[in-house]
Order: sequence, then structure tokens, then C-alpha cells
Amino acid sequence: MAPRAASLHAVVPALLLVLLLLAASAPAPAGASSRRRSTPSPFPAALAPPRYPVAPAADGSGNATAAKPFTAHYFPQELDHFTFTPNSSRVFSHKYLLNDTFWRKPAGAAAAGPLFVYTGNEGDIEWFATNTGFMFDIAPRFGALLVFIEHRFYGESMPFGNDSYKSADTLGYLTSTQALADFAILITSLKSNLSVPDAPVVVFGGSYGGMLASWFRLKYPHVAMGAVASSAPILQFDDITPWTSFYDAVSEDFKSESLNCFTVIKSVWNVLDARGSNATGLLALSKTFRACKTVQYVDSLSNWMWTAFTYTAMTDYPTPADFLENLPAYPVKEMCKIIDAFPAGADVVDKAFAAASLYYNYTGDQKCFKVEGGDDPHGLNGWGWQACTEMIMPMNVSSESMFPPSGFSYEERSEECVESYGIRPRDHWITTEYGGTKIYQVLKRFGSNIIFSNGMRDPWSRGGVLKNISSSIIALVTEEGAHHLDFRSATKEDPDWVVEQRRQEVEIIQGWIDQYNQDTAEMSQ
Amino acid sequence: MAPRAASLHAVVPALLLVLLLLAASAPAPAGASSRRRSTPSPFPAALAPPRYPVAPAADGSGNATAAKPFTAHYFPQELDHFTFTPNSSRVFSHKYLLNDTFWRKPAGAAAAGPLFVYTGNEGDIEWFATNTGFMFDIAPRFGALLVFIEHRFYGESMPFGNDSYKSADTLGYLTSTQALADFAILITSLKSNLSVPDAPVVVFGGSYGGMLASWFRLKYPHVAMGAVASSAPILQFDDITPWTSFYDAVSEDFKSESLNCFTVIKSVWNVLDARGSNATGLLALSKTFRACKTVQYVDSLSNWMWTAFTYTAMTDYPTPADFLENLPAYPVKEMCKIIDAFPAGADVVDKAFAAASLYYNYTGDQKCFKVEGGDDPHGLNGWGWQACTEMIMPMNVSSESMFPPSGFSYEERSEECVESYGIRPRDHWITTEYGGTKIYQVLKRFGSNIIFSNGMRDPWSRGGVLKNISSSIIALVTEEGAHHLDFRSATKEDPDWVVEQRRQEVEIIQGWIDQYNQDTAEMSQ
Repeated sequence: MAPRAASLHAVVPALLLVLLLLAASAPAPAGASSRRRSTPSPFPAALAPPRYPVAPAADGSGNATAAKPFTAHYFPQELDHFTFTPNSSRVFSHKYLLNDTFWRKPAGAAAAGPLFVYTGNEGDIEWFATNTGFMFDIAPRFGALLVFIEHRFYGESMPFGNDSYKSADTLGYLTSTQALADFAILITSLKSNLSVPDAPVVVFGGSYGGMLASWFRLKYPHVAMGAVASSAPILQFDDITPWTSFYDAVSEDFKSESLNCFTVIKSVWNVLDARGSNATGLLALSKTFRACKTVQYVDSLSNWMWTAFTYTAMTDYPTPADFLENLPAYPVKEMCKIIDAFPAGADVVDKAFAAASLYYNYTGDQKCFKVEGGDDPHGLNGWGWQACTEMIMPMNVSSESMFPPSGFSYEERSEECVESYGIRPRDHWITTEYGGTKIYQVLKRFGSNIIFSNGMRDPWSRGGVLKNISSSIIALVTEEGAHHLDFRSATKEDPDWVVEQRRQEVEIIQGWIDQYNQDTAEMSQ
Repeated sequence: MAPRAASLHAVVPALLLVLLLLAASAPAPAGASSRRRSTPSPFPAALAPPRYPVAPAADGSGNATAAKPFTAHYFPQELDHFTFTPNSSRVFSHKYLLNDTFWRKPAGAAAAGPLFVYTGNEGDIEWFATNTGFMFDIAPRFGALLVFIEHRFYGESMPFGNDSYKSADTLGYLTSTQALADFAILITSLKSNLSVPDAPVVVFGGSYGGMLASWFRLKYPHVAMGAVASSAPILQFDDITPWTSFYDAVSEDFKSESLNCFTVIKSVWNVLDARGSNATGLLALSKTFRACKTVQYVDSLSNWMWTAFTYTAMTDYPTPADFLENLPAYPVKEMCKIIDAFPAGADVVDKAFAAASLYYNYTGDQKCFKVEGGDDPHGLNGWGWQACTEMIMPMNVSSESMFPPSGFSYEERSEECVESYGIRPRDHWITTEYGGTKIYQVLKRFGSNIIFSNGMRDPWSRGGVLKNISSSIIALVTEEGAHHLDFRSATKEDPDWVVEQRRQEVEIIQGWIDQYNQDTAEMSQ
């Protein structure tokens, strides 16, 4: 295993575990310092949860309201669907949310409205429900029952209670295949209990949840007749997508706003490393960065900025939004404006810090920044485990990007995971289980009723499905969209292209349901 | 739990475990004796293995040869694909067979021939390879590499060696989902090692192996581009197929030959029960049945005959065959001829015994019959476990059938399984995981490239797919066919309709491969 700063381990909180893992497994780039630079994981799981979760309005107006537009329920879920060992029949309490405000219940000859089911991803399901206003917005039109199912080992759905994260003996059951089977069993049971066994089910998911939604449609077509997968990077595995594409895309976002902005950010990392190489320098940088406590490792400052630029690119929405952090419309443009407003001779660290501050402190209420340390109130840290088992998404940082170059090594990731959890990743399991390689050929004549939506401002779009696969496996791509923008509540400020994208999604879903009802009628004749 | 003869347990060998389970779980029919009548499982796993396994000729001539037309190989397979607990990474030696006699290896610009992969079922893979001559017969035309993969926990593929069947701790990993993942990993690895990552794969399977083949195509379309599922009763679960259909079909086979034959068999069970109710009667019956040892339980005699009639219906082939037992062409007709040849006033037990003897002793070399006891040289007894976990196929015996009526109860099956293995079945897991309910609607617009072939003389056909689902999910049904007849080696005596069925299968497979190659060429442009 390559050398790295052992002490770094201690200061990186569990929430940022993925960052550490990626850092440890990246080979040192030529000419870089011997100390490892961390490559932050851009997955939301590795993010601080939003500080001010806001529930979408149940009336679809887009106006936020403090009341929760759903009720919480719990399902007795079996621990292991794929074995019958004595442990496998252990039952845990699996959380899901319901909103039946708009549901067209079965009455006489009239068929029930559809179930719109969100396939929860790596966090508290209430967070995802709160940030998927699209489902609330379109429910009235379809008379849909809304269901949001939590992913096992997140939020309240802890199979071993407080011991769930104790070791591989318990965490071992945190896998995507078990989660998909959870969804299948819960949906089937729910429909049975509601006496609507024939109601159509459409699954929705964003990011990892979108990967799950599309895989669910492919693996359980008898449970879900359609899937809307927003910003789902199902092709970010193996060699399907170039490993450099993610950070190249982040960099392009900034470069497209201003070449100066890109150049400033690209130049800051070495300056930061040099100044932070001793205690005096770190003290000075801590003041520059307005750190709440004096920073002990210069990597913490790099990570802090890296996170800001990466996640701002992901959430480069055309309207003000509060998904990961509270941000103005087009925040990348705003960051670059900040950088470009400095006099040419100003200090590069000052420029980059000012831009990054927009991410953490747009509302201006942060008196200081917790550059090191943090908490995990939403129980998001299971992604560290998932990134060490199934979710091996190789990423390089190219020398053309605005980040310091780094590589990826399966071997080093594996060693790091053994050290952290005592297990080895199965590097190619995801593509063996779910496919991905040559997907345009494999699914050309197999499967149906999937929407893959992506916005090209979102660096995750590069690992998504960006072209139509068939007449019913559709790619909806917007040049200006960001990470599952289409799933956010509609607002009056939405630009036409996202209004149009959502309109197309509604039209396609309507087509699925019409066809389903027609098929049902024909079959029952 | 309903009362039953406890001592029966001790005398029923492991091989016939399924019989006992079904017997125990069937409620006593009205008017039946309080002692339970066993309902034999018609699944091949519950059968004695063939006494004279004969390898098909590699030249496709149908002439048997003693040389094995395959080589055995072993793959390091992971125990549990769906968890990452410390136990899951245990590796076992997974057996598969290869025949590359006809394989068109990749050479220059010429694409490699396809892989034809048999998805092994509940027994020694060599037995299935030996009885699937169809694949050998058609390999030359396609230039196909033949691969036969053993099912975990059968034959030599024992994850825990001699301890594999010790308890639920080990047997727990014997599930269909794990087996399918085994296949996916092995095929992917094999193609990689042979440097033919793009070669098309078609999976073949008969009976439970056919269920696996069709499920594999549905779950792993990126690994197999087509599936031929022969006599695969994927709809024999839940309430999809009437529970009485299996034994009604057996009875119809006999009735169609001769009403007298049907009536004689229908009347024998009560006579047998009455005569066997005491030791003197059992001694006399043991002589009538030419038992090697005096029979201790009259149920053993019923089972022995029940097995003969049921399995003869399954293997009611139009040519002499030696799959389960050595039998003449149209053996049901032959049995009925035997019964009908008796004088009207002859003893009903004599008639039924004479007919049943055809099944066990067509060649006339059995000096006596092992009515009680037996052995399991082919390691087939895992089906007992599978029938207690996933494979819950409810079966009743109706009063219209030629067998004594009996019912089925989920609760009693469950209690029996707890008693036998300490685990409870998951009654509806198969339809949740693989579907089946409303399959004609679900797959009408999903999936492709599956052939479901059935012969209506085979009682399993009733639980199969008997109508086309779409233009590429095809049902091939023959009125006179029996259990995966199409998969047997061609012979000169084959009737036209089976020749035609196989011709259609070849034509359809050729169409899949042509389309695959065309798609590949277009995609690479």
C-alpha cells in the first residue's frame, strides 16, 4: 500500500469517509507532493446534509411549507432475501412514507390511480421526499398515491438498531440487491393491503436512487411498469465511461463561465499546499478561511474547497435552491463573478476562498466555518461501506481539469477497504449484476418504459444514459440542467427548458399508464 | 400439525424427502383414511437417477457412445453474491463442462461462434449434459461452444464439502438467486478468459433448469441474449395455475389411451389400503409386488405405483428412451395395453402392478423391486430443501383424477419444513422475485428472445407458458410431446412433429444470433 499521512485518518469524520478512501487509493501524480491529496466523492452521501430542509408544498405551487406532506409507516422486512440461513429471517422495521392526498382510490368499476414510488437512496427518506417536489406536483394529474421507501441501513431503517454499523457482520447486508428486493416485497405487500393488486406502479429515483429505479424496472418489471431515473450514473462503472469525465465536466462548467475563473482555481492547490506546509502557514490560512478552529492539515482546506466547487457544479440550478446548501440561481456563474471581480494582482487563495464561501455561506449567517470535523444527523455515512463493496466507480483527475491530477487503482482501493472494514470490493459486480457494458445494444430489444434524464451541467451526467436506447427507453437531456433538477418542485422562475423537460416526462408517463390500462382491458376480455 | 405415521419418517430415504413433505402437508381428504397418503413429487430431483446413463453421440447421429463428450472444469465461485458478511466471500469449487469440438473460435475478422450454456438444475451436471443431446446436435450448425454449468449444492459443486447438507447454516446458500448469479459470474469470466467478450450467449434449460434459463434471460439480459426453456413450469406458483392441473393432466394421459385403464388405476388405491392394513396383507402384497424385502408400510406400495404412473406420463416419449427409466415408445399406451389385456374379472392390484412394472422393469432385468429404501448416487436430494424454502408449488389432487384426492396447505408445509430443516418457506417469494402473475401482460412489452417449449403429454406443461407472449417471447407447444422431449438427441424414429419443433427452435435461435450480429455491426459503425 502506498504511503499516506496516517494521522489524516483520525481527523476525517465518518461523514467524509469516502473522501479518505478515494484519496488513499489514488496514486500520487507525477510531480505532486508525497502527501496525498484527497479526491472528494461527489456523491450526495458524502455531503453534509442540508441545514434547512424545506418540505415542498402539497398543492404543487412550489411554495415551501413547514408541514410534512407525508405520513411515516413501518414494514416488517426480512434481512436477507437471497439465503435461508438462520440469520436471514431476522426482521427489521423498514420505514416508508405515504401521501394519499391526490390518490384516486378504487371505487366500483373505476380503476385505482397509480402508485408513484420513490426508491430511496443513501440517506434519510424524509430528506429525499422533501427534495422530490416533482412527484407532488404531478400527483394530482395522475390521481397517484405517493410512496417513498427508505433504503435499508439509512435513516430509521436500521436492521441491527444502533449496532447496524458495527462491523461487516451487520453492514454486510447493506447492498443494492437486498434494497431492490426490499422495494419489491414492500410494494407488493402494500398493493395487496390496499386491495389494488393491479394498479400500475412507476418508480422514481434521483442519483443513486435513480440507479436503483432503473435497475428495479429491469429486474422487477412485474412490480414496476415504468421508471424515471434522474441523474442516474449507471454507466460510471468499469471502463464504460472515461474515468476522467467527472472532474473534466466540473472543470468545463467553470471554464464555460470564465477562463480566468478556471485558471485561478486550477492554480490555487499548489499555493495552498506550499503555504500550509508548516504550523505558521496553517495558522495564517485558518484565519483566511475563517475556520472556527485552527486547521491542522492543509488537506482539510483543499477538501473544503474541492467540495464547494464540485457540489456547486452538481447543483448549478437555474433558480435559487436549497438541496445541498442554500445557493443562488446559477451558482457557478456567481462563483466565477466573485473571482473575476478581484483585481488581477490579488492573492489566488483569497479569490478561491471567496468563491468557495458562496457554497457554504450564501445566506451570510456563518460566522466561521467548520473546516475540520462535522456531524451526520441524517445517517448518510453508509455510502462509505457501499463504496467499499459494490459501488466501485473509478475516477481519475486529468491534468486538463482544474483539480490536481490523480489516478485510481483497484488494488489500492481494495487494500484501503480491507483496512477500514475488513472486506474487499467486488470490482466488477455491478456490471455483472445489472449490466451497463454495451447498454445501447443490450437494451435495444429488451426492456421498456424507462426515462433517463440528465442535465449536462451535472458532472454525473457523463456516467448516465444520454441517448435513446429504444422507442421506450428514452434519454431526456438538457444542456443547462444540473443534478436531478427535474425532480425539484416547479417554481415560477423555472426556465422554459426545464418546464419542457418535465412536460415531456409527464407525457411519457401518461403514455405508459394509458398503454397499461389498455393492455389490462384487452387481457381481461 | 396434522397427525401422521411418525415411523414413516424413518423409512423414507433422503432421496424421497419431497414425497414425505408433500404427504405431510396435504390435508386429509374427506372420507380418506386417517393415515396420510403420500403425494409423490413429480420433479426429477425426487427420482431415482437413471441406471444406465448414456452419453449422446458428439456427431449428432443420436447413436449413444460411452465416451464423455465434454471435459470437466472448476471455477472459484463466491458463496454469497448478495451480502458482504465475512462468510460471503468463502469460495467454493464450481463445476462446469465444456465441449469445443464444434466451436468456431475467433480468427482475424471472423466473429467467434456463440456460447450455448446449459443452466444446470437439481442434480449432477453430467446427467443433464448426457440427456441434452439437442445442444450437441445443433452445435455444428452454429459453431457453438457448449457449456454445462452445475447448480450449486449438486453433483460436485458443494460449497461446504461433505458438510454442505449438514444444516440450514450451510444449506441456506442453496437458492435459485445465488445459482443465477453463479451462472452470470462464471459465463462472464469464461468469455473474458476465452477473449470473446462479445460472443452471443444462449442459455438452455429443461424442467427446473428451464425455469432458471428463462429467469436468467429476464434478470441477466446483458449476459444471455436468448433462452430456450423446455418444460419450464414457471407458472406453477401461487394461484397462477390451478392446483389440480398437474394430476389431472397425468390422469388425462391415461384416460386418453383407455377409459378402462384410467378406471382400474383409480380403483386400486382403496383396495391396496384395505389389503395392506395388517401384516398378513402386507406380506401377501410384498409377494404380489415382488418386493426384495417385505414391505412395512402400505404407503410405500402406493408411492411406488404413483411414481410409476406419474413419471411415465412425464416421459411419455414417442420413441424408446432412457431418461428416468428405460422405457419403450409411448409408455402410457403400453401400460394401458397391459391393463386392458387382463380378463375383466382379474384382480385390480395385479393389473395396476403389471402396468407399474413397465416403468421399473421394461428391460426385464429386475429380479425384485426395492419398494422401500434406495440410494442417491447423483446427489439429487437438495430439492427437498428447495421445496421447503423457495419452490412452493401448491398441488391438489382432485376427485376427478385417477389418484386419491388430497389437498395442499401452506401452513402444514411450513410446519413440516420447520420440523425437517428449522426454516420456514417464503410462500410467495418466487413470484415476487421472478414474476409470473399476469405474465402475458407484464412481458408483452418487456423482454425478448425466449422460447418456452412444452409437450402437452407432460403434466408439467400446465404450469408452463403455452401461448406466445410477444413476437420474440414464443411458446412452442406440441400436443404429443412430453417432458423436455425437444432437448433429447434426435433419432431416426422421431415423429415429424418433434423434428418440426426442433427445426423451429433452430430457426428462432438463428434469428436471434443474426440480429445480434447485425446490431453489433451497426453499433460499431
